[in-house]
Amino acid sequence: MIKLVIDCFGGDHSPGANIGGALAALRDLPDLSLVLTGDEGIIKAELEGKSYDASRVEILHAPEVVGCDEVPTIAIRQKKDSSLMRAIELIRADESVHGIVTIGSTGALVAAATLRAGRIPGVKRPAFCPLLPTMAGGIVGVCDSGANVDVSPEMLCQFAVMGSLYLECAYGIKRPRAALLNIGVEAEKGDELRKTAYPKLAALRDVNFVGNMESRDLLSGNYDLVVTDGFAGNVLIKSTEGACLEMLKKLKKDIYSRTINKIGALLMKRMFDEEKRFMDYRNYGGSVLLGCKKIVVKGHGSSNEAAFAKCIEQAYRMQAADLIEKTREGIAAIAETEE
Amino acid sequence: MIKLVIDCFGGDHSPGANIGGALAALRDLPDLSLVLTGDEGIIKAELEGKSYDASRVEILHAPEVVGCDEVPTIAIRQKKDSSLMRAIELIRADESVHGIVTIGSTGALVAAATLRAGRIPGVKRPAFCPLLPTMAGGIVGVCDSGANVDVSPEMLCQFAVMGSLYLECAYGIKRPRAALLNIGVEAEKGDELRKTAYPKLAALRDVNFVGNMESRDLLSGNYDLVVTDGFAGNVLIKSTEGACLEMLKKLKKDIYSRTINKIGALLMKRMFDEEKRFMDYRNYGGSVLLGCKKIVVKGHGSSNEAAFAKCIEQAYRMQAADLIEKTREGIAAIAETEE
Repeated sequence: MIKLVIDCFGGDHSPGANIGGALAALRDLPDLSLVLTGDEGIIKAELEGKSYDASRVEILHAPEVVGCDEVPTIAIRQKKDSSLMRAIELIRADESVHGIVTIGSTGALVAAATLRAGRIPGVKRPAFCPLLPTMAGGIVGVCDSGANVDVSPEMLCQFAVMGSLYLECAYGIKRPRAALLNIGVEAEKGDELRKTAYPKLAALRDVNFVGNMESRDLLSGNYDLVVTDGFAGNVLIKSTEGACLEMLKKLKKDIYSRTINKIGALLMKRMFDEEKRFMDYRNYGGSVLLGCKKIVVKGHGSSNEAAFAKCIEQAYRMQAADLIEKTREGIAAIAETEE
Repeated sequence: MIKLVIDCFGGDHSPGANIGGALAALRDLPDLSLVLTGDEGIIKAELEGKSYDASRVEILHAPEVVGCDEVPTIAIRQKKDSSLMRAIELIRADESVHGIVTIGSTGALVAAATLRAGRIPGVKRPAFCPLLPTMAGGIVGVCDSGANVDVSPEMLCQFAVMGSLYLECAYGIKRPRAALLNIGVEAEKGDELRKTAYPKLAALRDVNFVGNMESRDLLSGNYDLVVTDGFAGNVLIKSTEGACLEMLKKLKKDIYSRTINKIGALLMKRMFDEEKRFMDYRNYGGSVLLGCKKIVVKGHGSSNEAAFAKCIEQAYRMQAADLIEKTREGIAAIAETEE
């Protein structure tokens, strides 16, 4: 049995999307059990009249909610009764609970998961690894995408190990092609951080390091994992998403401004909706926080039921593949390489 | 009379594109005169039979060419007779020459312009400022886009001043809205560099600093100038361009795979060509290297005649607006603010 705790609040469509997603995941995954955190009365009202296997659902009462605008460190101290903090305390204290799924405050999650749930021994800092769709029909992970803005070469090596294991375990990608985000493909390119990290990455036994990559090739399908500091990773992902959406908007406007053919426009509309869905990160699961002692999945704040269910499925796959234990071994192996 | 030196070699379509572009610029700008550097025989052969005002054209013989793959510092020392190095020596030594236009090796240009042509007093490092089209129909500059990967808060302040003056002088943008590229809009976001730079940028008298911006908003039209280190700036520009082009490719494939309507396909083709032209940075002039004692414009290596002519026009506008002198004053004014 895989047991996950579900933070039922903190998203744009909470708790409906969270609880609806939880019930969908329970239907799909017979050996999954869930603990729902949040206001018990509201959760019970939301569950009422819905059919689900009640033996696999517990509720943990937590009357407060951490808002997205709250300062993380203050939220951790002052909102101990929030759905997020109760969930974090549960994964910390209860060995039978394997991980947490939330769409609440990112900052509070990173701080609480790091400080309260704890890191895998040797992990310097947990890192986010969201997935993007490639134009070749696959996926590409970016680690780190924003949890750590000031990083060291050693941290980049850990991101490479943790991201590779994640893609291999949860998505079956054999020997993921890991590349260092840089301003050119030549080995000597980049700032001090990249120049120092390059040979260290190349020396990692368990990482299929394929060298530097340029940001323009993110969606090319030539890479499975992008290794980067959180600042550049964040710039990379947001500019790629932003450019695709702006481009779609412009094209749509340009097309509609030129033809009054209603059939054509309808055809176009369907296609544009499909492209938008293709670009919608909610369809690729949440961003996982790698390096914690338990599995941590952070979905987008605007997640709907289906997106939330995907995040739960993602956490389930990670646990089913024993990712935490493998990461523990992978991180320990870096230290051995260096000795 | 505005006098510029034209490096006739080093691009994909050199010297044809360079010399063709030069003649086009001479036709459009009556008070422009040019010095063409490169192999005299080849240049003369290229000019033969073309009509132009010969009194405004000189040739400076330089038999060598700096290749794109050459190590900049070595190229500087060993290729003194190259079209690029001769051009740089000319702007260094000849007071009557106001600037250089080239589509050759970026690395060699930055090194040579910085070391040989020299910086404006007080400028820590020259910075690139390319322009991108916004979805609102305007332009946005990004400074620095890759000349400097390791920067200080003081350098970011200089980029803000130099970029603002450039947009104001060469493009008539009044009080350009300058934003700091960051991973969130709140003032306290980012790494140590950004956190330290923010209040310094806000304190600059001559910069219309509007706060932090996220990379997804680059094309929104809400900003005129993005202030950034060269690493993140490079990631920003290349991922935006890459995503737009990949998106166009995908859309094109999806559309053509679905309809056999030839008229529709033709209509689409025209539109896609237009979108591609919209995204083609060659249509927005070159990337200027700000902070040198003379005007430096670096066009894309794949520039054609029209793109090269645009780069010359750009250098011309910068000189006509007396940008170097204004930058000198702007940089000096930062020092005053700090006192």
